[in-house]
Amino acid sequence: MIVTAVMIQVKPDSITKFIEATVKNHEASVRERGNLRFDVLQDADDPSRFMLYEAYETEEAAAAHKKTPHYLEWKKTVEDWMQKPREGIPYTVVKPLDKNKWR
Amino acid sequence: MIVTAVMIQVKPDSITKFIEATVKNHEASVRERGNLRFDVLQDADDPSRFMLYEAYETEEAAAAHKKTPHYLEWKKTVEDWMQKPREGIPYTVVKPLDKNKWR
Repeated sequence: MIVTAVMIQVKPDSITKFIEATVKNHEASVRERGNLRFDVLQDADDPSRFMLYEAYETEEAAAAHKKTPHYLEWKKTVEDWMQKPREGIPYTVVKPLDKNKWR
Repeated sequence: MIVTAVMIQVKPDSITKFIEATVKNHEASVRERGNLRFDVLQDADDPSRFMLYEAYETEEAAAAHKKTPHYLEWKKTVEDWMQKPREGIPYTVVKPLDKNKWR
């Protein structure tokens, strides 16, 4: 299992449409084979900051996500709404290691 | 539901014992009433960096975590092993909103 935390800062006037586009990406991503989580989170102290918490069973499934039509559409749609390039931090899972705890 | 992402940087010679203490904290935390997730993640590019991904049903449950014996023991145990003070980022959940998707 691998997790990627994607840290995003959105322009203040783009927050509402960013959420709308990202919810659409979420709905399709959780249906991908090998996806375990695709949590969309908004910073409680700064509503212009978001984290996407993406968990996949394998490196291959995570890589396949980046070739899906919904990801590519999201990427293109939100590009101009970001204050700076987003940062993806790759993580290995220490706990829980039971795959059933991720669904 | 609320999520806290705790970002931690550990001294290189303390990584192994930090993982051991944090796994112990994980095992007890996931048994708390109101806990939804307590994922322990290690940065794939820099093994001295960790993220704890803590999700609770309510603010009250998240606050209660910080009064548990296992949290207080963890906090005291790992204090000197950190390179700098840890940072907790509070998030509100945009998706998924169905609580059953978090267990």
